[in-house]
Amino acid sequence: MKTLLEAIRPTTFIEPEKLRKYLGVDLTIATETFQHTGSFKFRAAYNLALNVPNAEILTASSGNFGQALAYACQLLNKKCTVVMPGTSAQVKIEAVKGYGATVDLVDTQKIGRNERVAQLAAKMPDAYFASAYDDSFVIEGNASLGAELATKNFDVVVSPVGGGGLASGIIKGLCDAESAAQIFGAEPLLANDAARSFREGKIVVNEFEPQTIADGARTISLGNLNWAILQTGLSGIFEVPEEKIIEAVRILFSYANLKTEPTGALSLGAILDNREKFIDKKVCLVVSGGNVDAGIYRQILDG
Amino acid sequence: MKTLLEAIRPTTFIEPEKLRKYLGVDLTIATETFQHTGSFKFRAAYNLALNVPNAEILTASSGNFGQALAYACQLLNKKCTVVMPGTSAQVKIEAVKGYGATVDLVDTQKIGRNERVAQLAAKMPDAYFASAYDDSFVIEGNASLGAELATKNFDVVVSPVGGGGLASGIIKGLCDAESAAQIFGAEPLLANDAARSFREGKIVVNEFEPQTIADGARTISLGNLNWAILQTGLSGIFEVPEEKIIEAVRILFSYANLKTEPTGALSLGAILDNREKFIDKKVCLVVSGGNVDAGIYRQILDG
Repeated sequence: MKTLLEAIRPTTFIEPEKLRKYLGVDLTIATETFQHTGSFKFRAAYNLALNVPNAEILTASSGNFGQALAYACQLLNKKCTVVMPGTSAQVKIEAVKGYGATVDLVDTQKIGRNERVAQLAAKMPDAYFASAYDDSFVIEGNASLGAELATKNFDVVVSPVGGGGLASGIIKGLCDAESAAQIFGAEPLLANDAARSFREGKIVVNEFEPQTIADGARTISLGNLNWAILQTGLSGIFEVPEEKIIEAVRILFSYANLKTEPTGALSLGAILDNREKFIDKKVCLVVSGGNVDAGIYRQILDG
Repeated sequence: MKTLLEAIRPTTFIEPEKLRKYLGVDLTIATETFQHTGSFKFRAAYNLALNVPNAEILTASSGNFGQALAYACQLLNKKCTVVMPGTSAQVKIEAVKGYGATVDLVDTQKIGRNERVAQLAAKMPDAYFASAYDDSFVIEGNASLGAELATKNFDVVVSPVGGGGLASGIIKGLCDAESAAQIFGAEPLLANDAARSFREGKIVVNEFEPQTIADGARTISLGNLNWAILQTGLSGIFEVPEEKIIEAVRILFSYANLKTEPTGALSLGAILDNREKFIDKKVCLVVSGGNVDAGIYRQILDG
């Protein structure tokens, strides 16, 4: 049974000279697109599956956490059930099944996802219910990325923010290593509950799931554990307009040979929109994942 | 002034579990898409510019070698002139100029590229004329990739073949490290001069520049120095049909989150076409570069 550090793939650092020249910013990319299952979520999922005593784990995810948890459970010989909306792309459903997990498809017209999870949890009293972000094992797993970033002496780290699991983990990892780097969050303007939470000094909840193209950031709100860390650990949050997210995906393709999902490009979107704040700093751009359908990617390249 | 090993970016190894499962082959990708200037050519170009005594270097290239040499010369404070066809994409011309090189645009309707190079060489008697493949500094530079591959104990390494600079360098690097890995070449069926050279036991020259989508392999023939190494060092050459090259680009996108240029996907194309030969072996797939226009890539994803 591998430890977390044995199981994860170290992040891939890229020093993209063309992108540096284009932006006039000294930036380095830390990309998790080649992490197992194609996103940072594997760090969280493996750490959780490794450390909870339960032999069975239940989660609700239509995206990267479901795949990551399914694969982690396969590696650790645990049972895994992933609740997914019936409208999920077939390729995502197959990916989760491919790692040996049970997929529970919910008709969200008839029953809410949380309600279905509660039903299942009642049926599986021995299962651990895993949140994709609001869980200390998740934060601890993601802190392994912060520890890697700490070795590079960045002035500034910019991370996508959805539920806050990645950003809070990065803060924890950097702080544990006594790094002096400033950490900024980047979230879609269309899903700016984290920025609003900062302005109001308490967790603000979106009225409905925001329909941003950055589907990994379509969370209803920050998690409680995440908020506690972000509130003091983040130096600020950038709200990125949809067109800047799309432009960032295109620029990463053209100037860094990097395929990313829209959520992964949020951090570059923040820089495109606030370039002057990053000049003369050694900046790390965290790209959280690369799993995007060919059809959507094609449309993005179309411009 | 950095040594070759200080100047290059180590290759990026990816262990793509989805792709492994899809193919049923234990493969690892060694991708040069994140090498400086986006392809392995920087290894060759830097080694050449570092080691020739001349303060000025001349080459003819419409593609990756031109960019790589321009950047290497910029780093080493040498003058660089790149002869390019007048029909080259503006983005490629700008990239070479962006690294401070002089671009000499040739109207190939009026004067052949080689003729123009001869004209320029006569005008620049102190310049070194650099072949993109048929040069011992080029082979030695690319051998640095072979040395990296040798650390991983692969049974089989598959490399794209155009002029033979990459494959001969990999052979040299692996042999110097006393690796027992078998090395195979992958070239487009439409540009199969290397395979024909093997069959005839001597260098066979294409009648005209082959119009394969793998534009890095549109070479007229293998280089003499390359052929001398390939003839004894290669275990075989796969001739990859165009549709398998395109399928390989798509599969690398979907199953490995990897953006590649068509030439870079030749090695996977060879495996798609000859899967049974790679089962039960530890296979390394060399991806040579990632520089492809968004328009062409979009068409490839379109299917």
